[in-house]
Amino acid sequence: MSQKKKGGFRLDAKYLKMSMEYRNLIDILMSDKDYADIVLYDGEVVNVITREIYRADIAIKGKYVLLVGDCKDLIGPDTLVIDVRGRYLSPGFIDSHMHFESSMLTVTEFSRLSIPSGTTTLIADPHEIGNALGPVGMKAMADEIDSVPNKVHLVVPALTPDCPDLETAGYDTSSKDMEDLLNYKHIIGIGELQGFSNAKHVYRNTPEIITDLLASTIYAKSKNMVVDGNAPELFGAELAAHIISTGGKCSCHETTTKEEAVEKLRQGVYLFMREGSTQRNMAECIRAVTEEKMDSRRCILATDDMVAADLETIGHMNEIVRRTIKEGVNPVEAIQMVTINPATYFGLDDVGVLAPGKIADIAIIDDLEEMAVEGVFIDGKLVASKGELLIDLPTYTYPEQVKNSVKIGPISEKDLEIRAEGSTAKVRCIEVIPDQNLTGKLEETVKVYNGVAEPDVSMDTLQIACIERYGRTGNIGKAFVKGFGMRNGAFAESVAHDTHNIIVVGTNIRDMTLAVNRVIELGGGIAIANKGRILSDMRLAVGGLITDELDGHEVSSKIAQLERLVKEDLGCKIHAPFMHLSFLALSTSPIWKITDKGLIDVNNFEIISPIV
Amino acid sequence: MSQKKKGGFRLDAKYLKMSMEYRNLIDILMSDKDYADIVLYDGEVVNVITREIYRADIAIKGKYVLLVGDCKDLIGPDTLVIDVRGRYLSPGFIDSHMHFESSMLTVTEFSRLSIPSGTTTLIADPHEIGNALGPVGMKAMADEIDSVPNKVHLVVPALTPDCPDLETAGYDTSSKDMEDLLNYKHIIGIGELQGFSNAKHVYRNTPEIITDLLASTIYAKSKNMVVDGNAPELFGAELAAHIISTGGKCSCHETTTKEEAVEKLRQGVYLFMREGSTQRNMAECIRAVTEEKMDSRRCILATDDMVAADLETIGHMNEIVRRTIKEGVNPVEAIQMVTINPATYFGLDDVGVLAPGKIADIAIIDDLEEMAVEGVFIDGKLVASKGELLIDLPTYTYPEQVKNSVKIGPISEKDLEIRAEGSTAKVRCIEVIPDQNLTGKLEETVKVYNGVAEPDVSMDTLQIACIERYGRTGNIGKAFVKGFGMRNGAFAESVAHDTHNIIVVGTNIRDMTLAVNRVIELGGGIAIANKGRILSDMRLAVGGLITDELDGHEVSSKIAQLERLVKEDLGCKIHAPFMHLSFLALSTSPIWKITDKGLIDVNNFEIISPIV
Repeated sequence: MSQKKKGGFRLDAKYLKMSMEYRNLIDILMSDKDYADIVLYDGEVVNVITREIYRADIAIKGKYVLLVGDCKDLIGPDTLVIDVRGRYLSPGFIDSHMHFESSMLTVTEFSRLSIPSGTTTLIADPHEIGNALGPVGMKAMADEIDSVPNKVHLVVPALTPDCPDLETAGYDTSSKDMEDLLNYKHIIGIGELQGFSNAKHVYRNTPEIITDLLASTIYAKSKNMVVDGNAPELFGAELAAHIISTGGKCSCHETTTKEEAVEKLRQGVYLFMREGSTQRNMAECIRAVTEEKMDSRRCILATDDMVAADLETIGHMNEIVRRTIKEGVNPVEAIQMVTINPATYFGLDDVGVLAPGKIADIAIIDDLEEMAVEGVFIDGKLVASKGELLIDLPTYTYPEQVKNSVKIGPISEKDLEIRAEGSTAKVRCIEVIPDQNLTGKLEETVKVYNGVAEPDVSMDTLQIACIERYGRTGNIGKAFVKGFGMRNGAFAESVAHDTHNIIVVGTNIRDMTLAVNRVIELGGGIAIANKGRILSDMRLAVGGLITDELDGHEVSSKIAQLERLVKEDLGCKIHAPFMHLSFLALSTSPIWKITDKGLIDVNNFEIISPIV
Repeated sequence: MSQKKKGGFRLDAKYLKMSMEYRNLIDILMSDKDYADIVLYDGEVVNVITREIYRADIAIKGKYVLLVGDCKDLIGPDTLVIDVRGRYLSPGFIDSHMHFESSMLTVTEFSRLSIPSGTTTLIADPHEIGNALGPVGMKAMADEIDSVPNKVHLVVPALTPDCPDLETAGYDTSSKDMEDLLNYKHIIGIGELQGFSNAKHVYRNTPEIITDLLASTIYAKSKNMVVDGNAPELFGAELAAHIISTGGKCSCHETTTKEEAVEKLRQGVYLFMREGSTQRNMAECIRAVTEEKMDSRRCILATDDMVAADLETIGHMNEIVRRTIKEGVNPVEAIQMVTINPATYFGLDDVGVLAPGKIADIAIIDDLEEMAVEGVFIDGKLVASKGELLIDLPTYTYPEQVKNSVKIGPISEKDLEIRAEGSTAKVRCIEVIPDQNLTGKLEETVKVYNGVAEPDVSMDTLQIACIERYGRTGNIGKAFVKGFGMRNGAFAESVAHDTHNIIVVGTNIRDMTLAVNRVIELGGGIAIANKGRILSDMRLAVGGLITDELDGHEVSSKIAQLERLVKEDLGCKIHAPFMHLSFLALSTSPIWKITDKGLIDVNNFEIISPIV
């Protein structure tokens, strides 16, 4: 950014422009020289500072709020006056913790679906693309942000993979990357601090990670940037240690019980109450406010993971606010949780409230209890009305280097064989628990043919594998799994939290190999195979995680079609099979998981054999 | 500060140390290797995050809070366990807006008096020494901060003098100074933005000031620093313009009515409810909370101006909180106004709450309603107990360059003469209004002897003058004044808001000259003259504003003695005569004021003749 000497110091171009714009606002307010561009006339202002609703106008000039109150004197001959009688005027909403990757959508396509619901600011954690591609991927996402109208900020991982000894990521992020990343545009801090979520186990097994995380978080602190935490089920001393590892100020978006919510708020953690497509924790967390009457200034709503279909049909932060109001929270207090509260936490001083000099990001709400968003202003411009986006979003083309994240050639059936002796073998099975990241562990007996332990469809003892896809090690982790209930075929995907190698589950090695090789051929994506042929697939070209071909609606349809095939043709019994499979690689959540290095005993930080 | 390459980036020494300290805290929490230094056992924790009080321990290691909760496991053989049963444990208090100069005390002496009351952080605006000495004076104050145990941060003026066309300061501060100042240690932002307080008049008369202020405030904004505002009696568009001139986020500490408080909170201003030695605005402002039930997160208590005697006898922030509770505010909510609320506004993430990793600045309170502070911890050390400071404060010696701010030689009686023709003259009198900065205006008739208009003691028409003392112009402003009621003599002082030239009021020119010349001889201070001799004086060597010879107790006694003389020997009728005189030079507050340039018609930005 160009710099200009002004009044004895250097002000970069952005701030130089801001100072001229502010001067112009002052001239309008203090003289008759000029007028507001737009006056939203006679609305019900939702004041999230004072927690009030009262009748007032809002005058807008350029991208700024000029005045909230009686704005008659600011109406000139060219001012657009919009009558908003009976409508509520709220600051645009902030989603404080989300991953674009979960929706499989680009920044642009996610924005297209979320803006009409009133969301004007997204805080995205590019944790998934960071695991797959490292800084190259995260910076490409930051570059895309330049082309969307809403505000998108990134908080980047300080560590990839989460458990360096137990898995292989496409890139090993550590403190060495922080200076480069934290000085890149749109990056405002460090994202969820997975590395020390599992406090006890990490402390015992890889204490050097804590030292490295601290170097990163203290660097962020020295630059006045945020550090999100991630402290599921931590209490007391372990929670305190986690908080300190973030530099002493953090959020947590994985709080699932009221007791945990109370504890975290008391210990100074900003409580991100998660309410996403599958993980819904708000109703429990909010009890700290509704039952314990705690000050809610550090209570914040976030989605974490939203699928495209929900964004399209249910809404976004407006829906989460609606549910929060239903739990008995005062509507303005609930709106504070998606406006002033997160803006304060993230230090976003120009958004989150409607007051003179703030950015005119406004949600016009028709019905406060139902949080029906009628119109959305961003930077003083009406960008959405009645659920429809009114503006064109430019297409962003991701660079080739983020599209070729699958660096391996085809695998052979032999690669997936689990060798055993004798005619039967006792094998270790991951037990899938529906709607949870946690798994169980089981031992089963399977038959052995020609030295290979075979899946047993009749017992739902299927085979699972995780294939390192970045060309760094050639590892293939193998084990057994129970819970999918498939009778035929296999399916594979390059979405496998958090390192996103290729994960595959199947009833036989032939279909598994076929599905994996199709994913490889696609350069990342999802593939379903049955009886030696591919039933369907979907390319996720960007980092093997995000589609750059489909929009939100097409993604929803495609996923629905793929899920139907898995259910009907393969006989899979579990809903959301791709999501469930993808979390079986998450080596930070107990008990057993599969990574490219093998079957993981999470609590003991050990790689164990699939054969007992 | 030395820099060291660490993990791919440069972390300066302060943060490197912090990262090692944090690592050590984590080790204590996660293992049995070491224990807390101190455990405050079984107290009533005042949690200003959740607005609760509950029983808990606080464990301290070094200067940090290790844990708040059950700390038994952190007690080792060398841990000092302090039983605090029945006592309230609150974060140390913050005074969010104050001037050391008002107390005439150095940073060290003010700290000595305020720490035992539980104040652990001071945000000082060196506006007065800034007017007198510019950056040299403000930096000397910053240097002194190095030697006190409490946290002191400075917010510096962006403009001195307040009204460049109407008065002469010792130094002309403008945007050209901001890069230098805002990068100096202990300086965290820009202080009260006097330059655009008087919005309408400034806009009409000196609009170029607004441009210069904006350059400074946007520079502060670009560095994530605070900008305090100062918007007495501004509403609507004028208030909005003032807010925008601060860069869109500001405080105001001069709000005097409930209506103003409501308006400012609604427009996004952080409401600093002032409660100092003379200006007491909290009781009005707090009605926005007690009557209108507004969210109080942006309500903050501040003293602005405290005299040494009050600090010594009444207390400091504890007393202000006590009064706030008396107005019907929940005690924890009142404490939020001196802890988490200001810490959030100023971005002081490490203080203002008691939680893991925060600085252990703690006030131990015996009686919550009475806010009786029994003990004070700073940086994990007990520094005060039962009103007594337990530690030595090193003496700081101010450099010579800040001690010689009076650069002029003696004046002569002739210099103070107001020339007029005829035998009587109609003259303009400033009318003093007790306990206000505002003045009235009056015209009176006085006798003229030998071409000189004379004061008329029988009518209380006294003479007033303001003598430029920095050797920059040699100006002497002269006029008449009513309201002191003196029968004899004169008194002068080098404290004269905000430019701090020498101001003098008297019944005759001879004593006025004598008093002024004694102030000049002292190098700044106060002098009282009667019948051709000096009755008493007090040296204020630092910038002509602060004593470096007397401690708080001695200052109180000395001021009391001087006030007694002015009352008894000169017959002055007004209480706090030095304070009232000092504000008669404040050219930002209407109606008439006196500066070195003459009699000022504040509303019209004009210098007018004392003779009609």
